[in-house]
Amino acid sequence: MPALTNLDVIALVDSFPYPHDASAYSASLAHLYKFMSHDLKGNLGYVLASTIEKLRVYHPEKLVIDDLDQTISIAPAFDTFEKRTKMMADLALEWRKEGKFEVLKGWREEQYAVYYPSRELYFTFERSACSVLGLVTYGVHIIGYIPATDTAPLRLWVPRRSKTKSTYPGMLDNTVAGGIGYPYGVFDTLIKECGEEAGFDAQLIKERAKSVGSVSYHYLRTAAAGGESGFLQPEVQYTYDLELDESSPKPKPVDGEVEEFYLWDVDTVRQEIAAGNFKPNTALVTIDFLIRHGIITAENEPDFLEIVSRMHRQIEHPLK
Amino acid sequence: MPALTNLDVIALVDSFPYPHDASAYSASLAHLYKFMSHDLKGNLGYVLASTIEKLRVYHPEKLVIDDLDQTISIAPAFDTFEKRTKMMADLALEWRKEGKFEVLKGWREEQYAVYYPSRELYFTFERSACSVLGLVTYGVHIIGYIPATDTAPLRLWVPRRSKTKSTYPGMLDNTVAGGIGYPYGVFDTLIKECGEEAGFDAQLIKERAKSVGSVSYHYLRTAAAGGESGFLQPEVQYTYDLELDESSPKPKPVDGEVEEFYLWDVDTVRQEIAAGNFKPNTALVTIDFLIRHGIITAENEPDFLEIVSRMHRQIEHPLK
Repeated sequence: MPALTNLDVIALVDSFPYPHDASAYSASLAHLYKFMSHDLKGNLGYVLASTIEKLRVYHPEKLVIDDLDQTISIAPAFDTFEKRTKMMADLALEWRKEGKFEVLKGWREEQYAVYYPSRELYFTFERSACSVLGLVTYGVHIIGYIPATDTAPLRLWVPRRSKTKSTYPGMLDNTVAGGIGYPYGVFDTLIKECGEEAGFDAQLIKERAKSVGSVSYHYLRTAAAGGESGFLQPEVQYTYDLELDESSPKPKPVDGEVEEFYLWDVDTVRQEIAAGNFKPNTALVTIDFLIRHGIITAENEPDFLEIVSRMHRQIEHPLK
Repeated sequence: MPALTNLDVIALVDSFPYPHDASAYSASLAHLYKFMSHDLKGNLGYVLASTIEKLRVYHPEKLVIDDLDQTISIAPAFDTFEKRTKMMADLALEWRKEGKFEVLKGWREEQYAVYYPSRELYFTFERSACSVLGLVTYGVHIIGYIPATDTAPLRLWVPRRSKTKSTYPGMLDNTVAGGIGYPYGVFDTLIKECGEEAGFDAQLIKERAKSVGSVSYHYLRTAAAGGESGFLQPEVQYTYDLELDESSPKPKPVDGEVEEFYLWDVDTVRQEIAAGNFKPNTALVTIDFLIRHGIITAENEPDFLEIVSRMHRQIEHPLK
């Protein structure tokens, strides 16, 4: 396989067309329904037309389908957080029982938060079912690194995912990454994941983890993500840097999700990204790291502006 | 004046409506014409309907106006870089001579590059006239800072603009900032501006300036920018960090553009941003700095995601 450019890597993750790419965008939208709030005021996600057929049985009591407007909305009766969350939880359980969607084989028993345009919490929903409705999901990623010295280049801690994982087995990853389940906060999730995935002590993370921003992209799921291809998955990842040194604790596999941690110099990391060996969204987060650390610059990357802009995509749905 | 939130500050700069805000967006577009390439393949900027009336005299020999499509395009005959650049240079000179537009009182005698959708150079144009046609412009901003120590907080070098400047007199600014004129590169411009505006030696900048990304926003000009209100000005700023220490050279006013440089702790900088004392786009660049340095985080800033996304806006026109 020829080497991927950094923009190729971004395009693998930010794969839903943009409104300014009018023909590709309208071709995509032709096959999608908008998932709307009960009052039709918020577009919370995009749903495949093929999924709509599987959901028509809930019309109009639970979900209201309008084929002319290409919308599917929560029925007006579900006008509180509690009512919506209960109804949607029942739906997800029924989908799982009936084997309606492949993605639910990855059932997590973990709730994700969904927001209204005002950014109020609107309902919560089983994590593995979010992509059925194209809902925005949130995660936190941290990259542990040892800065360049006079004698050594910048090095990054890179784990290889276990070969037995159902999603992206054997691929490279960010030092630690995890989804933000309701009702946990960003930093609490980071501390928990750093302990579970890398054996990092909470005290180390509190002292050394630095919030550095967020990335966002609109992902069109492929088979490698597990389950159906074509589901929409807009994602936001809060990003953190973890500056370490030679004497710092090293990450170690704890929960069987990680096979091994490598301490790789930046050139090796870039080669592995170009070879397509990183899980795509963690390649994007790593490219953001390399930009913020002055490795990828406007002078050495012809696609610099498009990359920076696309890894901070304006998602068309309400965010937290 | 009540304190501005960080999002208020961003909204002052990124003031053109978004497509997903459908009613505000279409209301804005109703008064705008698209400035199109000679082959109608690229939308290079937005032009006020009131400007179109002043340009109608050039129809159809130089500029072709289509009132039905609300477009103004370069006439098909101007099918090379050289022809377009010459014709547009003559237009700008004529506008200046006739006093057609207020913004040309700030004539710079400096060319800015305009790009085609393929990112090829399409023509160059007098800097002060770019906002007449809503063209994308590019700059470079650097923030000089001294990191926090055990005994002192993070401090930033903040200049106050001369009270005699025609634009944003007396306001606070980034340590050094400047527009990227054709045919200069990003880093060459940075070195030149660092010398001219702050007396920084080229060697210091080569050793210490770190490329950290870019920001972008779509600005609707106000009177404070000089000249007409309402012109569109989409901008891209390449961002650099300059880590200094107590023994580093200090910035000093050189060319009369800066009244004084302050070394302010981060709390003072944040208060001045909230008080509206920064030039708006430099407040945005400073907020990006504070996010990358872990000062503004998802935990302490309720508008975090909207701020990060909007300061990396996807511009609707071709970029470099």
